Amino acid sequence: MEQEKTAQPAEAPAVQQQQQEKKAKAPKQPKAPKPSQQPKQKKEVAVVGGKKQGAELIGITATKDGNFSAWYQELVLKAEMVEYYNEASTEMPSTASMYIWNTIRNWFQARIAERGVDEASFPMFLSKTSLDKEKDHVEGFAPELAWVTKAGDKDLEVPVAVRPTSEAVMYPYFSKWIRSHRDLPLMLNQWNSVVRWEAKQTTPFLRTREFLWQEGHTAYLTEEESAKEVRDILELYAGVYEELLAVPVVRGKKTEAEKFAGGAWTTTVEAYIPANGRGIQGATSHCLGQNFSKMFDITVEDPVNKGEKIHVWQNSWGLSTRVIGVMVMIHSDDKGLVLPPRIAKLQAILIPVGITAKTTPEDREAHAKKLEEIRVSLKKAGVRCDTDLRDGYTPAWKFNDWELKGVPLRIEFGPKDAAQGVVTVVHRHSGEKGTIPIDDLATKVPTLLEDIQKAMYDKADASFTEHRLVLEDWEKVLPALNTKNVVIIPFCEAPACEDRIKDMTKEEKPMLGPDGKPLPSMGMKSLCIPFTQPKELVSGTKCLNPECKAEAKSWTMFGRSY
Amino acid sequence: MEQEKTAQPAEAPAVQQQQQEKKAKAPKQPKAPKPSQQPKQKKEVAVVGGKKQGAELIGITATKDGNFSAWYQELVLKAEMVEYYNEASTEMPSTASMYIWNTIRNWFQARIAERGVDEASFPMFLSKTSLDKEKDHVEGFAPELAWVTKAGDKDLEVPVAVRPTSEAVMYPYFSKWIRSHRDLPLMLNQWNSVVRWEAKQTTPFLRTREFLWQEGHTAYLTEEESAKEVRDILELYAGVYEELLAVPVVRGKKTEAEKFAGGAWTTTVEAYIPANGRGIQGATSHCLGQNFSKMFDITVEDPVNKGEKIHVWQNSWGLSTRVIGVMVMIHSDDKGLVLPPRIAKLQAILIPVGITAKTTPEDREAHAKKLEEIRVSLKKAGVRCDTDLRDGYTPAWKFNDWELKGVPLRIEFGPKDAAQGVVTVVHRHSGEKGTIPIDDLATKVPTLLEDIQKAMYDKADASFTEHRLVLEDWEKVLPALNTKNVVIIPFCEAPACEDRIKDMTKEEKPMLGPDGKPLPSMGMKSLCIPFTQPKELVSGTKCLNPECKAEAKSWTMFGRSY
Repeated sequence: MEQEKTAQPAEAPAVQQQQQEKKAKAPKQPKAPKPSQQPKQKKEVAVVGGKKQGAELIGITATKDGNFSAWYQELVLKAEMVEYYNEASTEMPSTASMYIWNTIRNWFQARIAERGVDEASFPMFLSKTSLDKEKDHVEGFAPELAWVTKAGDKDLEVPVAVRPTSEAVMYPYFSKWIRSHRDLPLMLNQWNSVVRWEAKQTTPFLRTREFLWQEGHTAYLTEEESAKEVRDILELYAGVYEELLAVPVVRGKKTEAEKFAGGAWTTTVEAYIPANGRGIQGATSHCLGQNFSKMFDITVEDPVNKGEKIHVWQNSWGLSTRVIGVMVMIHSDDKGLVLPPRIAKLQAILIPVGITAKTTPEDREAHAKKLEEIRVSLKKAGVRCDTDLRDGYTPAWKFNDWELKGVPLRIEFGPKDAAQGVVTVVHRHSGEKGTIPIDDLATKVPTLLEDIQKAMYDKADASFTEHRLVLEDWEKVLPALNTKNVVIIPFCEAPACEDRIKDMTKEEKPMLGPDGKPLPSMGMKSLCIPFTQPKELVSGTKCLNPECKAEAKSWTMFGRSY
Repeated sequence: MEQEKTAQPAEAPAVQQQQQEKKAKAPKQPKAPKPSQQPKQKKEVAVVGGKKQGAELIGITATKDGNFSAWYQELVLKAEMVEYYNEASTEMPSTASMYIWNTIRNWFQARIAERGVDEASFPMFLSKTSLDKEKDHVEGFAPELAWVTKAGDKDLEVPVAVRPTSEAVMYPYFSKWIRSHRDLPLMLNQWNSVVRWEAKQTTPFLRTREFLWQEGHTAYLTEEESAKEVRDILELYAGVYEELLAVPVVRGKKTEAEKFAGGAWTTTVEAYIPANGRGIQGATSHCLGQNFSKMFDITVEDPVNKGEKIHVWQNSWGLSTRVIGVMVMIHSDDKGLVLPPRIAKLQAILIPVGITAKTTPEDREAHAKKLEEIRVSLKKAGVRCDTDLRDGYTPAWKFNDWELKGVPLRIEFGPKDAAQGVVTVVHRHSGEKGTIPIDDLATKVPTLLEDIQKAMYDKADASFTEHRLVLEDWEKVLPALNTKNVVIIPFCEAPACEDRIKDMTKEEKPMLGPDGKPLPSMGMKSLCIPFTQPKELVSGTKCLNPECKAEAKSWTMFGRSY
């Protein structure tokens, strides 16, 4: 290992300037990192010069354990995952986030296209009249609808709302297009943005006034086909989390109290945030049953019993940019973002080290040439990598900067490394260091990136497994929640009992955590009824709520949650 | 050739019904065509049974030569390229159109990603305050802005408009992100929909209140780099038309009168509609110069002359779903849509023929098996194809239906074809017929599809070439326009002269065409100054406008246009 993560003396301003001019003219110079990856504070840093100042300026001041919410807000801004958008008092995704979203989009799109789902693009506006058709469903959205009332300086005769979701836009066309059982299944998906003008404070990725998502809407002749699709799509959502984002999820069904109000039943993938012990809903796939087909009169003639009408069975399923927020919350740390290699736009950053003011121009040039060779060979091996050749920054400052941005692998290369024919690698997620012979880079780095992906998943999975407690004693529930667990308990599945459980697990005087700060005092709610039950529910088992007399129907996962 | 395009007796309803039931249970039955491809009139057709009625019901009543505008409107609805959307009095793209758009999107996206353009996703709303920043530019959009004034039932303190384009949303961030010449170039693109609430009647694909597009926005240190990109992107736009849509275009520069008002200069690809002799703008790539960087204060320190500020050079470039409309107008005919194979979701439709009520169940089954073998072998060869096994429809009705939908290749297969080991193929664009040995399908059909693509391009190109007249005599201009030509004339490029030319080429009493109907009476406007000039402009040549005393600056292409 060539270079400890310590300070290098910053070069004198005069030297910097000369080098910048030289670089600006050099035609083959590897491109500077993208603005979205560049530190905003570099001007100040260039002035103060030293390492500590730089490191402090770009670091995150809140800690993940100390103040999770502040840490998260600070992290996504400083790591440039979102930008604040003043005009609508909300956040928008950065190009770095869009890279992740598009990776997910391509992965999911290929799989639904394979299933025969067609891409649609319905309009963004809908009128009050059509919204009224599905009043129950839309009621929840009503306070958040953004209404267009004017075009230019003229009032619209009929105001239109920007879609909060597209049932009311799409289902009248389902009714028009589906005229025979041969038109089924109808499987449509669209990638778009929807608007929910939240009055509450927004949370990047989790609650923003406009967000990107996909919404799939399908119709089937039979309940069986519809039910199969709901589960198949849920498995794809689990794949997005587990295979791309290195986030383990529990697949299950929502209780009546937590299901999508307009549908028959809802399936969900639920993730877990170790830092605060909260559950978080990952994505949902709904069987709408025949509720909407009755509302919108979507029928076909029964192919078996001629003359009989059948209302089609519908599903809807959606995945939003929330996935990015969940991933950030789970993997990142006090140094910044930690990205799983499969979705990182930049998988490895190559940083020259050991170059000082005393290094001769010839040695600099030879070293730069070797760096470029390494970069090219990695690129050929399919590794998304770049070289950080910025002048005027110490290696330590660069280390901090790329750690903040979450790049999975740092590759340091100095004259001593060169002499030994190796590079030094540092894993972002664990801090682990090692060396790799230059000749082996093209084979070892891709494998290493996959190993990192797996290690990140395994770590998150171990934590979720450890903190998913199967309890049969009510007295243990609250202590479990207070020590950052979710619980799986025998439950009667009744909405009234669920409400009561929520109340019973609120705390009037919240306990203090080890840091002397109050622990979350919210009550727990049901996350899902896991498809994989922890063990057999012995017949006659009572619901764990001591006030409830009913028999338990399932092991249900509860937790404090988002 | 087995089957002439004539009527087959429709099967008796009882037979139909039996077969439908049988099909519905058969697990391996190839999937029925998608709803978006299915005739809406089939119930009536099934009742009337005969061939002529069916053919008449699904056909287009207007003709391309007789009433181009009515023909187009009818075509895009009946061929299911758009659906009318009542809520916003506009049209929306169908899944068939979305397939085309996504093919274009993937093609273009791969090429700009290769250039290093990052994908962005800026919000859809912007406030009056930020719009006012670029008043001149936004003035043209002002009457078409859709204003959100309420969220739920509360009035917004500051109303926000839905973006008609994103300069005002994006450039404040350019100012924030670009802090040094090392942050350049900044190259962003987004795929989204924009809203321009047109008061005028909408035209599918050409003028709708919401439409899909991509908008690229970039910033460079130097004018040279910026100018190079403008042309590179224009070449990609030409590629979309020429390589994907089989539409020839002329690349050129817009005159001052026709350029994007906010920019320095505009480049364009211009297409030509043979049916009415009009030019149509295909897509534009703008050099914005430093206009916006001065408005939005987007500067860097001059890397050469330290301490000096440089306003960055910006470009913007956009391609919208309009491309689909241009393609439809050029290739389609009185029978319906004609799609170039490269962008057709369904490239070949396989139709069983020669099966009558007398055919035995065994023969039917053997024939169906062979059809499925053909379909599978074509699919393996990479041909996007499907089989039309719908009962109760004559082959002739199916021929008409798939002609209406524009499928490039019809493959007919009957017992007599089977006996000879061939299929009969019919080219949608030319009506040409031929046979192909079944054993050669996997090699011959892909080649044939490429031949069709080329033939469609060549036909359109020949027509554009023939109708692009280089004129040096003013007296010939009006007759040329009246016989469906565009003209290339010596022109001074002055906006006032251009206005005058427009007036001079309007006709008070329009001439009547060969069908006795009046010919278009609009004046001509400049389409572009072609980069490839038709010949050298002799020094001292006068502007062709007889009232103009100025010297011509270029050969400029003029025409009646969209």
